[in-house]
Amino acid sequence: MATINHNFTKLSSGYLFPEIARRTALWQKAHPEATVLRLGIGNTTEALSPAVCKVLHDKVDLLSQRDTYSGYGDEQGDTYLREALVTYYKQHGVVLEPTEFFVSDGAKSDAANIQDIFGQDNIVAIQDPAYPVYVDSNVVGGRTGEFNKERLCYDGFVYLASNEGNGFVPEPPTQKVDLIYLCSPNNPTGAVASREQLKAFVDYALENKAVIIFDSAYCEYITEENYPRSIYEIAEAKKCAIEINSFSKFSGFTGVRLGWTIVPKALECEDGPAGLLNQMWNRRQCTFFNGASNIAQAGGYAVLSGEGLKQSQALVAYYMENARIIREGLSQVGLTVYGGINSPYIWARTPNDMLSWDFFDLLLDSCHVVVTPGSGFGPSGEHYIRVSSYGHRENVVKAMQSIEENLQI
Amino acid sequence: MATINHNFTKLSSGYLFPEIARRTALWQKAHPEATVLRLGIGNTTEALSPAVCKVLHDKVDLLSQRDTYSGYGDEQGDTYLREALVTYYKQHGVVLEPTEFFVSDGAKSDAANIQDIFGQDNIVAIQDPAYPVYVDSNVVGGRTGEFNKERLCYDGFVYLASNEGNGFVPEPPTQKVDLIYLCSPNNPTGAVASREQLKAFVDYALENKAVIIFDSAYCEYITEENYPRSIYEIAEAKKCAIEINSFSKFSGFTGVRLGWTIVPKALECEDGPAGLLNQMWNRRQCTFFNGASNIAQAGGYAVLSGEGLKQSQALVAYYMENARIIREGLSQVGLTVYGGINSPYIWARTPNDMLSWDFFDLLLDSCHVVVTPGSGFGPSGEHYIRVSSYGHRENVVKAMQSIEENLQI
Repeated sequence: MATINHNFTKLSSGYLFPEIARRTALWQKAHPEATVLRLGIGNTTEALSPAVCKVLHDKVDLLSQRDTYSGYGDEQGDTYLREALVTYYKQHGVVLEPTEFFVSDGAKSDAANIQDIFGQDNIVAIQDPAYPVYVDSNVVGGRTGEFNKERLCYDGFVYLASNEGNGFVPEPPTQKVDLIYLCSPNNPTGAVASREQLKAFVDYALENKAVIIFDSAYCEYITEENYPRSIYEIAEAKKCAIEINSFSKFSGFTGVRLGWTIVPKALECEDGPAGLLNQMWNRRQCTFFNGASNIAQAGGYAVLSGEGLKQSQALVAYYMENARIIREGLSQVGLTVYGGINSPYIWARTPNDMLSWDFFDLLLDSCHVVVTPGSGFGPSGEHYIRVSSYGHRENVVKAMQSIEENLQI
Repeated sequence: MATINHNFTKLSSGYLFPEIARRTALWQKAHPEATVLRLGIGNTTEALSPAVCKVLHDKVDLLSQRDTYSGYGDEQGDTYLREALVTYYKQHGVVLEPTEFFVSDGAKSDAANIQDIFGQDNIVAIQDPAYPVYVDSNVVGGRTGEFNKERLCYDGFVYLASNEGNGFVPEPPTQKVDLIYLCSPNNPTGAVASREQLKAFVDYALENKAVIIFDSAYCEYITEENYPRSIYEIAEAKKCAIEINSFSKFSGFTGVRLGWTIVPKALECEDGPAGLLNQMWNRRQCTFFNGASNIAQAGGYAVLSGEGLKQSQALVAYYMENARIIREGLSQVGLTVYGGINSPYIWARTPNDMLSWDFFDLLLDSCHVVVTPGSGFGPSGEHYIRVSSYGHRENVVKAMQSIEENLQI
């Protein structure tokens, strides 16, 4: 009699973004004449850069000829791409080895799967609000109790509240934890951790032999100086941190699918010597994964070099101009806004203490604008919405106009 | 203090194919002048078909224009591809719904991840020998005891011995099990299960409320009539079977990465109504995965239609001609061979009861031919080797010549 993994039944509800899609589709069905303006999901909208497209075409041509065709690559990613990633980090002063990089089909997969190399007994701390994948993957992995419907929290998790009081960057835990998920620039709040703030977490992790899982998928969106782009800019972070990153938001690879995870050989844990976690992630990838698409990997290489790099940075600048327009638009109607300066996400307080989903419904119904309700990211996200700057400029402008004209608060 | 998932430490050794690569590289280093002829990994070597390449180029062009660019797709796969898969199955008399298909980055990922929706208490049966991923993923998932070095088995698994006596297709278990991994046409033995043999497993599963995980990645290699290509050709199999398949071997997508898993809505389990496992796999994919590469998905669509289908079938025929050459070549030097008629794999008995790895070393050293030692697939694989028909024709011919000229047995 086959039984299920009962941890799945603890998951509080449907995954956030499918739920948004469901509500939006329902509303659209009831209002077929309306144009919905989508600033919900962080989904890129602008074309792949010419440099990337050229290399993608070239790779397809190589695959079309038997002499240049290739099948399975290394599960860890093609050597040329891992070496290009080493060079990319070196430009920012971070020295890593190719064998510390694991190329994947994207940051979401890695962020969800990384917990699998850790024991079920690890106590997990997450920023609150947080990208739901950190939470849900650990629920499925058996590291929580039930969902507590009063506190809107999972029993067993340590929630590090991010709020106006701490500028949306929490202090390290006051209690002992073993795994800490950090995301900077943060999804959803748009806050970015300073060098000192990250150092406090690294110090905590070293002292407690905890492991930090650092999601830096938005590091290319940092526009202000002196903010660390990689956690390895903090001394000794290689001893205590895994870093996950992606080509999705940097170069529009959301659909092409390509990311990477760094597991330094210096990374320590309770059960064995430094290097063990690097070996374990290697074994995990060799067993559960067969490498990222070789076409996508060729494209990723183009992103990291010469024209590709410049064109990707131009894509980021395009979205950041959207972010500026959104920040200003929301401020003008009287909302209090955060983020959007070193991040493509604007984190706005709902008016009159409205609940996130109520404000979501109001914006959809009165302005035809889709955003993401902050409460979907955790209890501290209640009374906020996340507005994504991914969209065509004209749609972003229209959305702000619609909010200015139609929002009654 | 972060602790590791100790189930990883139970894994008996490095993953099989990296170990082959390691030994081969070592040997090559010692013999830099020699040309190694690789018939080890089942890795496609012939170019992608023109129909596929055309669509891949077209897709890159679409992504290069903002009006036709797309980012994240559905985690379950693009609707047009799921519908094409429905049509593909219908051609073979199997009726399924698009929402029963989950497109992925390949059969290996799905075969490894599927265990995650089942409880740790499930008793797992596997064909022996078997593709190592079924075993290793369940070891990591905590469904076994330690590796038993005497029996070369994991405690807790039920091994269904496939041998000459049963034509390499075992009977259903004699004891109660909950999950059963079946692969037909089989990797590594090349045996294909008849309708009656599959029906016996379906009957067993229905009676015991077990779930069959059916890997049909090689179904396009069936050349003889009346063998089922899908387990759903067996009546009521939708109530008890998940099917996993891939574009890798059918159309050379080993590097492009694209596969699919079918979780029928009729599928039953102990803990809930039919449909629960379909929902759970949907939730798993939405949480741990972000969809297969949209470029690969476009290519997959091309495989399933018109010229693409014919060209893929021609690719399969090419490898099957290799298989014929290998069967004949190995027979000529006096080896006993199986498989290679409805499968790209030839399963050959080692001469004089040699151990698999010893014969691997002998073939590498004396003939410069790389094969896969059968013992890497499980205890019943000892005294066999798997020879893969994936290779350029001229290399396959050379390998057989080299074996004929140099093998001393």
